[in-house]
Amino acid sequence: MSPKPLDYESLNENVKKVQYAVRGELYLRASELQKEGKKIIFTNVGNPHALGQKPLTFPRQVIALCQAPFLLDDPNVGLLFPADAIARAKHYLSLTSGGLGAYSDSRGLPGIRKEIAEFIERRDGYPSDPELIYLTDGASKGVMQMLNALIRNEKDGILVPVPQYPLYSAAISLYGGSLVPYYLEEEANWGLDINQLRQSISAARMKGLTVRAMVIINPGNPTGQCLSEANIKELLIFCYQENLVLLADEVYQQNIYQNERPFISSRKVLFDMGLPISKEVQLVSFHTVSKGYWGECGQRGGYFEMTNLPAKSVDEIYKVASISLSPNVPGQIFLGLMVNPPKPGDISYLKYATESKAILESLKRRAHIMTDGFNSCRNVVCNFTEGAMYSFPQIRLPPRAIEAAKSAGKAPDVFYCLKLLEATGISTVPGSGFGQKEGVFHLRTTILPAEEDMPAIMDSFKKFNDEFMEQYEDYRGYSRM
Amino acid sequence: MSPKPLDYESLNENVKKVQYAVRGELYLRASELQKEGKKIIFTNVGNPHALGQKPLTFPRQVIALCQAPFLLDDPNVGLLFPADAIARAKHYLSLTSGGLGAYSDSRGLPGIRKEIAEFIERRDGYPSDPELIYLTDGASKGVMQMLNALIRNEKDGILVPVPQYPLYSAAISLYGGSLVPYYLEEEANWGLDINQLRQSISAARMKGLTVRAMVIINPGNPTGQCLSEANIKELLIFCYQENLVLLADEVYQQNIYQNERPFISSRKVLFDMGLPISKEVQLVSFHTVSKGYWGECGQRGGYFEMTNLPAKSVDEIYKVASISLSPNVPGQIFLGLMVNPPKPGDISYLKYATESKAILESLKRRAHIMTDGFNSCRNVVCNFTEGAMYSFPQIRLPPRAIEAAKSAGKAPDVFYCLKLLEATGISTVPGSGFGQKEGVFHLRTTILPAEEDMPAIMDSFKKFNDEFMEQYEDYRGYSRM
Repeated sequence: MSPKPLDYESLNENVKKVQYAVRGELYLRASELQKEGKKIIFTNVGNPHALGQKPLTFPRQVIALCQAPFLLDDPNVGLLFPADAIARAKHYLSLTSGGLGAYSDSRGLPGIRKEIAEFIERRDGYPSDPELIYLTDGASKGVMQMLNALIRNEKDGILVPVPQYPLYSAAISLYGGSLVPYYLEEEANWGLDINQLRQSISAARMKGLTVRAMVIINPGNPTGQCLSEANIKELLIFCYQENLVLLADEVYQQNIYQNERPFISSRKVLFDMGLPISKEVQLVSFHTVSKGYWGECGQRGGYFEMTNLPAKSVDEIYKVASISLSPNVPGQIFLGLMVNPPKPGDISYLKYATESKAILESLKRRAHIMTDGFNSCRNVVCNFTEGAMYSFPQIRLPPRAIEAAKSAGKAPDVFYCLKLLEATGISTVPGSGFGQKEGVFHLRTTILPAEEDMPAIMDSFKKFNDEFMEQYEDYRGYSRM
Repeated sequence: MSPKPLDYESLNENVKKVQYAVRGELYLRASELQKEGKKIIFTNVGNPHALGQKPLTFPRQVIALCQAPFLLDDPNVGLLFPADAIARAKHYLSLTSGGLGAYSDSRGLPGIRKEIAEFIERRDGYPSDPELIYLTDGASKGVMQMLNALIRNEKDGILVPVPQYPLYSAAISLYGGSLVPYYLEEEANWGLDINQLRQSISAARMKGLTVRAMVIINPGNPTGQCLSEANIKELLIFCYQENLVLLADEVYQQNIYQNERPFISSRKVLFDMGLPISKEVQLVSFHTVSKGYWGECGQRGGYFEMTNLPAKSVDEIYKVASISLSPNVPGQIFLGLMVNPPKPGDISYLKYATESKAILESLKRRAHIMTDGFNSCRNVVCNFTEGAMYSFPQIRLPPRAIEAAKSAGKAPDVFYCLKLLEATGISTVPGSGFGQKEGVFHLRTTILPAEEDMPAIMDSFKKFNDEFMEQYEDYRGYSRM
């Protein structure tokens, strides 16, 4: 009998090709262990609230009032909500056409897009056009929309950093394109080397690919590096010379843990460069409420801004966005709040500023605790997390550990991470889920566990790791081979 | 110079092929007129809150508390919220891992999926497995996921009713498949004729297509008919014989305005039929919080349930859902509330029941006002809206109107709808956006304008239409040809 249309063998091959390790084998095993009653520390996804980070109070007050607008007429509302939250809720409701229960325009509410444009102008010093800002259910959905518009067939290549966040590899597979890797230099603090980029693009062209776009993740995920202005300039010249769209994933722009390289947007660098390049390079920049000190992942609020795209293409992207009608409206309002937080003098300013600062400073301390912890372990080396919310240590696995992994039918880093999970409950993602150079192994963990738990987690990691290394570095073992 | 990657000429052709009339030329023109200060009645999208429908109070209270969990510790919370809303908010927060700001599992929160499974069991009389229920950012996203999994190339055909909701045609274009139309019979109250289906599938196979799935929309959009149990049985036998997946769009299951054909789910009919068919036909059913008496479109909460899919395929669909991490969590909680509303005896029951009933009864009255209104117009005939929230009258355009449209470079129905918009501010969607038989013209309007505005809107429509007909039925006009 012939297979049915939704049997595995008859599914779209591109769907089957997708790999997505962040919720892959390790995550599934961790979920199983959790069901069995084991305490799991989920560091596989950058999901701050799941690890105890409290939401910022002011935005949650505003959104609660927007969801329950009848409270605005209640004489007791002032007992539970400050006046500026009440005023702000009225403001956002006035931007909707029918409150949070009505679809917005498929690009998002015009009033919110205007607030985002104003934020971008303040950030970069160049005006931004709300008509070129589209809101999405989280930044990932926007990335997928753009890749879908770019990829025509398997001959279209997209330059992606390796290690990379697997959204990119997964979406490129799903839409039937080809991933063209460029390697970040671990020894140079995960820096981006333009010569390496040129080699990658040449190699891809030799294989007959048309390279169409380049992805950067700044600050880096999983690698945590912050790009310098000089580096971004080089990149933009490269995109100009090679006729590439730059897809700038800047979702971690608030998460900076050092002073040497503050966040600078690709858009600002582009405009600073002046003509002709500032009018020529096509750029799409992504941002979100899921990261930063907000961490409002579950709300799914994101946007992308398009620079130097012709109006006709912008219209096509609008049309495709229209198929699913509207991004979720509460998530849009979170974006408005993120780009327009309480100001000095506002009733809620002090609380908002105190909460934000506490989260950011704690993340910075955790970045240090984690890097130092990894570097104190046998056969583990780790660059400092300059930005974003991940640590990506290299694990130098002894040959016997690699052998043991082979016997168990696992990739060596998967083998290590599974053992770590079973021994400690720490749920990480193997480096192979992000890509790594041949013969080199990593894991990714977020820096998000609560600060007070960090020392114990790192001790537990160290104990596991050092015992693991002891076991597999046993030279008597070799002599038996 | 060669075009840039995001120039129109270098975009993915499938993106360019997409058509989406619900937010097409008419909507854009209406938005322009609105900007110019004209009062527009947007009946182009089923967006109840945008036309003044008030949200149900209880779910909004619960979601406001979930967004602001710190209120639960406030001694004054009882002044603004009833005890059952407080209890329910605590319940839903206990189902999350970190509140509304944390990503859930990519399939949705397990606790909500369990509540949905219990609802389905109560509705159908057969148990449902939460592991086969996936939550999405509105039902449209789920439909797109399934079509993406099904469509391998342009030789894969999907049977779609004509007229249809253009989500289907648009998504099929986007994923590069082929739409295989089957016509609903306007004269038979938009009924579905199995012989017609057989002809459609034969014709598609003659063209070399592999027909993989069949879409039904029950209650119908834009056509408003409710399928009988006997009709669904025939369909399921057809799917069984022809090896088709049935995609059952049942988002309007609460919107029923007659008693002869209450809503019955495809899943219940399938299970009632017994073996072998109940274990053989692959079925995916869709539901949402956007429709019914909820109308919570802006929250983007939807789910799909998979029946008779092998575990390996369910896993593939999970993997692809994981790329964008998690559907929005507030939307998931709305789904929980929809399938588990206040019960008799609960503090909020009476209010909830009164509000829901008022909305549904008003919709029923509006369905009558609108159908009767259209049928009182010259050259307009309209089936009664048995369910859903649309009216789809046939407009019998005189030959001279068709000529005039041609001269204006417009499709005849687009011409008519544009004139209607300019004259009255009523923003409809031309029938060609949904598909219609050659030489026959329609428009779609929602039945959602406020009930008190309805008589004036229908008067305004009648005045425009009858004058339009008068103008173009002028036989002196013909004599000049």
